Amino acid sequence: MEANSDKELRITLIGAGTIGLSFAAFHLSHLPAPSQLTIYDTRPNAEEYIRDNLTKFFPNNDAPISISDVRVANDLQEAVVHAHIIQESGPENLPFKKELWAEVEKHANKNALLWSSTSGIPASRQAQNMQDKSRLLVVHPYNPPHLMPLLELVPSPETSEDVIQRTQTFWRARNRVPIHIHKETTGFVANRLAFALLREAVHLVDSGVVSVSELDSIVETSMGPRWAVAGPFKSYHAGGGTAGLKGFFKNIGDTVQACWSDAGTPNVGDGWEDKVFAEAREVYGTVDIAERDRITHRLLSVLEEEKGKKDHDNGRST
Amino acid sequence: MEANSDKELRITLIGAGTIGLSFAAFHLSHLPAPSQLTIYDTRPNAEEYIRDNLTKFFPNNDAPISISDVRVANDLQEAVVHAHIIQESGPENLPFKKELWAEVEKHANKNALLWSSTSGIPASRQAQNMQDKSRLLVVHPYNPPHLMPLLELVPSPETSEDVIQRTQTFWRARNRVPIHIHKETTGFVANRLAFALLREAVHLVDSGVVSVSELDSIVETSMGPRWAVAGPFKSYHAGGGTAGLKGFFKNIGDTVQACWSDAGTPNVGDGWEDKVFAEAREVYGTVDIAERDRITHRLLSVLEEEKGKKDHDNGRST
Repeated sequence: MEANSDKELRITLIGAGTIGLSFAAFHLSHLPAPSQLTIYDTRPNAEEYIRDNLTKFFPNNDAPISISDVRVANDLQEAVVHAHIIQESGPENLPFKKELWAEVEKHANKNALLWSSTSGIPASRQAQNMQDKSRLLVVHPYNPPHLMPLLELVPSPETSEDVIQRTQTFWRARNRVPIHIHKETTGFVANRLAFALLREAVHLVDSGVVSVSELDSIVETSMGPRWAVAGPFKSYHAGGGTAGLKGFFKNIGDTVQACWSDAGTPNVGDGWEDKVFAEAREVYGTVDIAERDRITHRLLSVLEEEKGKKDHDNGRST
Repeated sequence: MEANSDKELRITLIGAGTIGLSFAAFHLSHLPAPSQLTIYDTRPNAEEYIRDNLTKFFPNNDAPISISDVRVANDLQEAVVHAHIIQESGPENLPFKKELWAEVEKHANKNALLWSSTSGIPASRQAQNMQDKSRLLVVHPYNPPHLMPLLELVPSPETSEDVIQRTQTFWRARNRVPIHIHKETTGFVANRLAFALLREAVHLVDSGVVSVSELDSIVETSMGPRWAVAGPFKSYHAGGGTAGLKGFFKNIGDTVQACWSDAGTPNVGDGWEDKVFAEAREVYGTVDIAERDRITHRLLSVLEEEKGKKDHDNGRST
């Protein structure tokens, strides 16, 4: 009962919120597809809710696997008993998750992969009531997971190497980028990085240097597209010429340090919120997410194509 | 003698380093093109150096304006006397820039736009020896300027509104994104934001949470493409659903604050350098910048096309 068997792959999703449904859309549209996709959710009229909302991901009725083939379960034991992969995207609530995994463990096959989509509750805490804590792994997506390539794999100190490796194999086979985070860290990595920039952004808007929309324009026309192609270390390593990152810091390390020394450190609740929230509301109203996702998908297709070329040039299979 | 005259537009670039030549490539390839492009540089064999290096920007010999039409000047007075725009990309050295602007001011037409590409020396300091300090404006590009759309316009408190507006008009006519930074701030805005993220990145690598290349992969597959489409405020405003940014902070403000409270604050010279520099060298060697720029150009073309569509849909001319 291997998760990567070519023949049978039964995936069970727990929780049909935004993240759970987006993962469902991912599994329905990426080969190799599961032979069965089950969604477990406790909300009233779950079946109708799930089919209606999944349909929205496929506006042209173009789900590669028919949405009517998705099995909606309302009994946890029945939902997980035959699954190779059990992926939880439930409420961000420690008691809920602790209880869930203890219950899942009773019914699931002992080789099933157990993944939590949590953005903040470490596997070591979620697993507290489990008999075998080596089975649980945080697989944190970047929203929305049906589009964004990143998955942060954040094991607890007890998660087994085998679980991490089988999880990497699963995502890589579907052209995703699973990154193994080596230590359980508050907020993991992607959010820590993004929130560090957000903090300085809040400071700059709050102190009148730029407006909310000016700041967004700056990011959209500079580091956004740059970092989509080459992350910060690679970019600055390139910026240092033949001397690399060392050359970069030799050239402008003083400016870097001056910015770090002058950085703002606003906190949540410090009073900047009213101005910043109101400005965002005024300039953006309600964001057209479908439009954003369509453009993001175009960019990601270019990047995937380029990555395919490069892998091909390097003689690797793509 | 207006910079935006349809008939005559004479641009003089001072300094033929990486940034100066990239700006030259920009001016040579974007309409409306200058009627004359002059480059002033004091290095020996400047003429040969400039023509050889400019050619590299047009690998298929496809410079829309012939490189042989570029005028190379080695006398400052002669270089600037007839120019509508004088754009300085010289050494990042305050005494050099102060002296340069005092000298340029003596010879330049009084309506000429005076721009500095500096990434760190404020216009107020560069203008110290000028008679008319209202003329100077920092126009800071994101590297490389022939590709990246952003220009940070950073006036001193004395820079005139007219200079800012004419500068915005020039860049907007060429599909660039000039953003007016309202206060002279250490490192301006783009670098402050990028360096804030870099600082957390250094902390995470230095403390063994991820490697240099894992960190870059994370950014390339998550916030890079996301922020290329919608900057951080717009993204999080969308993430908050109908409640916008306020809803976002209501939902995960605790996680944001936990990351902020736990953020690393390494400084330049703290000792993390050896490990981080060596790792970048090992995984990246010498970065293929031409490849990076080619892919970046593809992404930016998609974004420009989408922006054109949107402007068209909104009934604005594109």
